[in-house]
Amino acid sequence: MAGNSFGTLFRFTTWGESHGPAIGVVVDGCPSRIPLTEADIQPWLDKRKPGQSRYTTQRREDDAVRIQSGVFEGVTTGTPIALMIENTDQRSKDYGDIAAKFRPGHADYAYWKKYGVRDYRGGGRSSARETACRVAAGAVARRILDGVTIRGVLVQMGPHRIDRSRWDWAEVDANPFFCPDREAAAQWADYLDGVRKAGSSCGAVIEVVASGVPAGLGDPLYDKLDSDLARAMMTINAVKGVEIGDGFATAALSGEENADEMRAAPGGGVEFLSNHAGGILGGISTGQDIVVRFAVKPTSSILQPRRTVDIDGNDTEIVTKGRHDPCVGIRGVPVGEAMMACVLADHWLRRRAETGS
Amino acid sequence: MAGNSFGTLFRFTTWGESHGPAIGVVVDGCPSRIPLTEADIQPWLDKRKPGQSRYTTQRREDDAVRIQSGVFEGVTTGTPIALMIENTDQRSKDYGDIAAKFRPGHADYAYWKKYGVRDYRGGGRSSARETACRVAAGAVARRILDGVTIRGVLVQMGPHRIDRSRWDWAEVDANPFFCPDREAAAQWADYLDGVRKAGSSCGAVIEVVASGVPAGLGDPLYDKLDSDLARAMMTINAVKGVEIGDGFATAALSGEENADEMRAAPGGGVEFLSNHAGGILGGISTGQDIVVRFAVKPTSSILQPRRTVDIDGNDTEIVTKGRHDPCVGIRGVPVGEAMMACVLADHWLRRRAETGS
Amino acid sequence: MAGNSFGTLFRFTTWGESHGPAIGVVVDGCPSRIPLTEADIQPWLDKRKPGQSRYTTQRREDDAVRIQSGVFEGVTTGTPIALMIENTDQRSKDYGDIAAKFRPGHADYAYWKKYGVRDYRGGGRSSARETACRVAAGAVARRILDGVTIRGVLVQMGPHRIDRSRWDWAEVDANPFFCPDREAAAQWADYLDGVRKAGSSCGAVIEVVASGVPAGLGDPLYDKLDSDLARAMMTINAVKGVEIGDGFATAALSGEENADEMRAAPGGGVEFLSNHAGGILGGISTGQDIVVRFAVKPTSSILQPRRTVDIDGNDTEIVTKGRHDPCVGIRGVPVGEAMMACVLADHWLRRRAETGS
Amino acid sequence: MAGNSFGTLFRFTTWGESHGPAIGVVVDGCPSRIPLTEADIQPWLDKRKPGQSRYTTQRREDDAVRIQSGVFEGVTTGTPIALMIENTDQRSKDYGDIAAKFRPGHADYAYWKKYGVRDYRGGGRSSARETACRVAAGAVARRILDGVTIRGVLVQMGPHRIDRSRWDWAEVDANPFFCPDREAAAQWADYLDGVRKAGSSCGAVIEVVASGVPAGLGDPLYDKLDSDLARAMMTINAVKGVEIGDGFATAALSGEENADEMRAAPGGGVEFLSNHAGGILGGISTGQDIVVRFAVKPTSSILQPRRTVDIDGNDTEIVTKGRHDPCVGIRGVPVGEAMMACVLADHWLRRRAETGS
Repeated sequence: MAGNSFGTLFRFTTWGESHGPAIGVVVDGCPSRIPLTEADIQPWLDKRKPGQSRYTTQRREDDAVRIQSGVFEGVTTGTPIALMIENTDQRSKDYGDIAAKFRPGHADYAYWKKYGVRDYRGGGRSSARETACRVAAGAVARRILDGVTIRGVLVQMGPHRIDRSRWDWAEVDANPFFCPDREAAAQWADYLDGVRKAGSSCGAVIEVVASGVPAGLGDPLYDKLDSDLARAMMTINAVKGVEIGDGFATAALSGEENADEMRAAPGGGVEFLSNHAGGILGGISTGQDIVVRFAVKPTSSILQPRRTVDIDGNDTEIVTKGRHDPCVGIRGVPVGEAMMACVLADHWLRRRAETGS
Repeated sequence: MAGNSFGTLFRFTTWGESHGPAIGVVVDGCPSRIPLTEADIQPWLDKRKPGQSRYTTQRREDDAVRIQSGVFEGVTTGTPIALMIENTDQRSKDYGDIAAKFRPGHADYAYWKKYGVRDYRGGGRSSARETACRVAAGAVARRILDGVTIRGVLVQMGPHRIDRSRWDWAEVDANPFFCPDREAAAQWADYLDGVRKAGSSCGAVIEVVASGVPAGLGDPLYDKLDSDLARAMMTINAVKGVEIGDGFATAALSGEENADEMRAAPGGGVEFLSNHAGGILGGISTGQDIVVRFAVKPTSSILQPRRTVDIDGNDTEIVTKGRHDPCVGIRGVPVGEAMMACVLADHWLRRRAETGS
Repeated sequence: MAGNSFGTLFRFTTWGESHGPAIGVVVDGCPSRIPLTEADIQPWLDKRKPGQSRYTTQRREDDAVRIQSGVFEGVTTGTPIALMIENTDQRSKDYGDIAAKFRPGHADYAYWKKYGVRDYRGGGRSSARETACRVAAGAVARRILDGVTIRGVLVQMGPHRIDRSRWDWAEVDANPFFCPDREAAAQWADYLDGVRKAGSSCGAVIEVVASGVPAGLGDPLYDKLDSDLARAMMTINAVKGVEIGDGFATAALSGEENADEMRAAPGGGVEFLSNHAGGILGGISTGQDIVVRFAVKPTSSILQPRRTVDIDGNDTEIVTKGRHDPCVGIRGVPVGEAMMACVLADHWLRRRAETGS
Repeated sequence: MAGNSFGTLFRFTTWGESHGPAIGVVVDGCPSRIPLTEADIQPWLDKRKPGQSRYTTQRREDDAVRIQSGVFEGVTTGTPIALMIENTDQRSKDYGDIAAKFRPGHADYAYWKKYGVRDYRGGGRSSARETACRVAAGAVARRILDGVTIRGVLVQMGPHRIDRSRWDWAEVDANPFFCPDREAAAQWADYLDGVRKAGSSCGAVIEVVASGVPAGLGDPLYDKLDSDLARAMMTINAVKGVEIGDGFATAALSGEENADEMRAAPGGGVEFLSNHAGGILGGISTGQDIVVRFAVKPTSSILQPRRTVDIDGNDTEIVTKGRHDPCVGIRGVPVGEAMMACVLADHWLRRRAETGS
């Protein structure tokens, strides 16, 4: 049933299929009197846009966003902000084969079982195309988050991880992978060419860091900041794991290793001596950087033939031609940033309700 | 603000602090005419109960549950089921030291920053004691899930993982760790004795498997089954990571390795040749086993002294005496099962709304 | 904050201002495989459309609806159904005077106090134009309600009530007032001409009746069917009162007069000997006709000069020229029907979750 | 399904049946650091308590409330506040007759049709006993509403209305009816004695007024302040109608009569010259008094025999002995006040999220 909205006070609702006339998002709950134009949103969409390098799908979309409501004379009015992006490069003919067969590892089969009908063109609703709507919503969310910086990177492509000692934020926009490690980026370029030429695909791990988040965001016990982030990231296509701070690695730490010690900060307040917790304790932000990582599986739309069944239940094979990302994780970076922004904006407003400031 | 409820159609709300008079949960949305007595709930609470071996906290609680509403003549009436557990073994004197200091890595500091006041006795609301309420709610949820089996195990303690080739469900209840690998359990016993004697603590990884779940549970795109599970597990105390199926490991797989191929099943329907996806595709259950893993960090309540600040902002050290679990992950097993049950029950009802059966 | 969605399982979210480029609604939660085309929605919009008689605003809008998502090959897919209506006849020049002054009795002042900014053109978000979105959502809701008939009428215009003994459903579409009493309709025509010529306006009372609703809809104690209906109707522009069944008149009845006696029905089941309750007892439908009435105040956009203040707080007078309905209640009839349909659709699905059929 | 919670940021959940061991409410979302003890809540419960005059049910309940969580050292902690009231005077033997028959006009039949089972003792969940929980929640809500006064009165008993020209707030607590008109109260005493002696019952109309509410509360278009109030009042047992300000009477007014004119206030700001709108325009509070009225039907638990059916569908008659209020509307006054308080508290926090103050 209804499941296409996200957030409580800052809430967005998305609609649209990969090959329909358009996709869109309604952002409800943005406070009034915030300057907002399409120029505030478009750069984030451009960052996610397909067809920008040989490493992403060759589908060409302008992804030009139009504000249809909620803004008057350049500022938000407190009413719903409807954003629409027209689909312009739908090549439905590419998708003939998947109309009658299920791609293994794809949402095809599950949608069929649940709904009994599906718009198979380009994956329909399950297509990553929808994530453009999240990016647009995230651009609005960022306007609320005074003093907060949200940045995402790829920390692993296929089996290849970055070397964290080489982390350089300045590198992130200097390669087509949002990679903070120049050497890793060079390695990945070769690796991904190989994957692409083999008609295969690979997974990735994305890390999103939010700096400048004040302490006190998160509503225990069931609307914790980390549980909302985990939910948020897990809603992104192909994501199979989420972790906060040191995540799964904390299982192997001792209590004394894992505890982030505190000291009185020179200028007042408290400083932490480490950040294993990823900026969240007890479900509430501590003022440290919020650190979230999520794993994206390799797409199942590949040229390698795979065994499957057709919609009549007969054994068959499938090869997915169409245009696809060999590593969908790359474009997941701006999407992860956007989801972080939306979660923080929601809790930003919730905290304001609690504290009045 | 309000954040102590979980679920949409099957929704529970918990209340209570570690050292208050009682804790409780209101389960709202359970269909009527389901046989339910305290005897259906108590065994699950007993499984989670502290003080059952030397490996868990020595706090002694009967955890005797009382049904206060919603059941009439042995069956549910469709009205809210209030369940209450009295706290009987609160030794508040143990907690003198933490009243004025923040345990590093604990919710203490974050609660203080958010609320400006906290019930420090035994961790107050942030105590794992609250998870008894989840287990009680989960026991009700299980009554809805016809034909579903939910089982949790510990697959890693500290740095020590099980050997999956030795997995034996029959072992799980034969050791104090819910471990499916007899040899690992023996190893863990020695390891945990060492941790306990050192006044330290260790983390763990828990795996919960649900079998018999029909296809079609989950409401894309934002109430996906996996995103609700990720949220659910991340709300549990000390959890820092969640993954579905192969999780983070999928990042290193190729598209053809990761795709779970399908064949026509001999008896009709479809069978999958593998389950990298953990039973969920596109946010919807496929009929395969649902597999979720989550990482629990080592508790920060340890005897090892750690640097911290007091509530006046002065540098100090802290040692947490009290009674604590050296590996809170152990008791996280029934809690993880319960959260799985609650998520499935909610989507079970949501699916019924969609399909009418 | 976010407040532009309605419903739980069948949920819609509207957006758009009176003089923006378009208005729209996203309907989320409609089950799959329901035949749906624009032709199923347009007739209901046409019924509400302005400019159809001299008794409604002379603004000319085609109100042509476009389905932008959620429908594939003529049937719903279970994904969000986005519906959009372009605004074509915005004469913003008409609204110069209200930019700087508050219409007494209008939302102008309250929006200004809340948001500090407002799109004053045609009332912006507070315009009754938004109700077209509700009518569109209601048209989708009706597709879910097998065997249910929803019909609305005007039972009072200004001080003039219908004579219930002359009630004739066949008359409703035979006059421009949705009036079931032919004589009253004739009287109202004269009356409303007078109101219009005087540059004044008048209120109305609308009654909506749903027949064929099965027993068991409604979720006590806070999501009762009647409380959701009351909320629904009170969200409609200018509505100041809502009642169920005999409503306020029941206060003057005795217990024995008000109790709807029951008898075994000849064909099995139960029949009621009266329907003071309007088909709802304890917040749950009984199987009788659901009867809801709501009062619409006279619009404050009138040619009669009224004392007010301007946005700088200075005393002034205002006359609202523009194009307005002398009796907005008339066009409230299809809107009330739509809200009834949406509430019933939501509870229809909720009941199905409870009962499985 | 789940329907026993009310509110978004300030949210409460009630549980309990008339003849179970206890009833209770969990108040979630109350900000921290608010002084709160049982003595802040008990007086409101005492006001609603049965058995205080011969005009209410003779059931004797202390209605002693206990705070079970969420308060530490006399102040709220921001965690859920669980409040419990034990049932002490359940005389189940009184209810033998209604176990097998449906009271006409009562929730009996509807619960039976919906749930297939019901706790018939004292009406079970549908009993007005639950309203004690609302009153307790309302007492907490009042603590949030700085500078707001909420007062309720009875303005009509049976067919007898007060004379508004005689309205005197000082009279309200001087008679057993919460009546602001001394003469009407005297008349009602005689009238109600007659009703009681006849074994009948009568309805009532209640008016609740909130003064000191700032402008800007309410979230159009679907979480309007008036629509939330309408929903709130309609959830109260036996309520059949709700109106805001002049309510249904506005239908008979002209636009110029109904528009509340505004003037610059001597001390700055704006003053209204009338309050037909009941303090709400466009779904948002204006700063004027919030005025809500609701109609309560006569209870169907009467000594007069009525025709009905039994649970096997056979024709029969019923006489309700037990102990009942001849005019349940009287005790509806504190309940209406409480619901007003809860709605305002929720929107108070929501507004703070919007404006940050």
